[in-house]
Amino acid sequence: MDSLTMHPIGFIHSPFSQTGQVPRGLGAKHEEEGVLEVLPEFAAGLQDIEGFSHLYVLWVFHRSESHELVGTPPCDTRPHGVFASRSPRRPNPIALTVVRLLAREGNCLRVRGVDMLDGTPILDIKPYLSNVPEEELKRGWLAEAEARRERS
Amino acid sequence: MDSLTMHPIGFIHSPFSQTGQVPRGLGAKHEEEGVLEVLPEFAAGLQDIEGFSHLYVLWVFHRSESHELVGTPPCDTRPHGVFASRSPRRPNPIALTVVRLLAREGNCLRVRGVDMLDGTPILDIKPYLSNVPEEELKRGWLAEAEARRERS
Repeated sequence: MDSLTMHPIGFIHSPFSQTGQVPRGLGAKHEEEGVLEVLPEFAAGLQDIEGFSHLYVLWVFHRSESHELVGTPPCDTRPHGVFASRSPRRPNPIALTVVRLLAREGNCLRVRGVDMLDGTPILDIKPYLSNVPEEELKRGWLAEAEARRERS
Repeated sequence: MDSLTMHPIGFIHSPFSQTGQVPRGLGAKHEEEGVLEVLPEFAAGLQDIEGFSHLYVLWVFHRSESHELVGTPPCDTRPHGVFASRSPRRPNPIALTVVRLLAREGNCLRVRGVDMLDGTPILDIKPYLSNVPEEELKRGWLAEAEARRERS
């Protein structure tokens, strides 16, 4: 497989029209509500989605025009690899957000926890199923950056 | 955005050569080890990934040739929408797996928890950062299918 062409299955309605409005960095909370509007031709694929509390949304960093393998994220003063960060400047500009499903209205899902810009294309929606136990989770340079900030 | 073309950043080495070998359905455990081999030109993007215990792997259902908006998964006898399931027959055939990072060896990541076939193309790797609290998580038709199976 050399390449794969993807098409949006829908678009996001969000209160954010510019990247600067999206909360970022250490401890950023994403509590804003938004709507995942699934295109009518894919709406049948939402059957039984109401039973899940949380969803994965795979979406496109559609404003991102190039990638950068190593960069300094807004939440740290040190550079990190793109695969060890959530940088939008990725070789394949796919983003992943976990949202809470509030309600389904036809082909629209009202959700909480959006961090996407208004009009962002959606590639896929999946049920969020499982947790990694807290005591097994290590958060790498992010935990270190948080600790440094707390000390300063 | 009408379409987006993606290219693999690497490939998976897995003990599974056929889909029938991958544990599936209710309560399936994914404890097999495998290797994420990142192409040399993207290896710089792995900087600092060693500090994370778990990773998201975005990969391609490359054997999937068409999509099905509603289908009956192997773990249930009832049909569900594709966006409420992990079916490989998705409009955009992107899969998502959380793996545990065991070790990095140059451009290769040894991981536990693979459920991909050997040779599967990888689109992206991201650090796994956050949990949804257990008491807030609802698992929809999957919980119902499990309950039905326990009763029978």
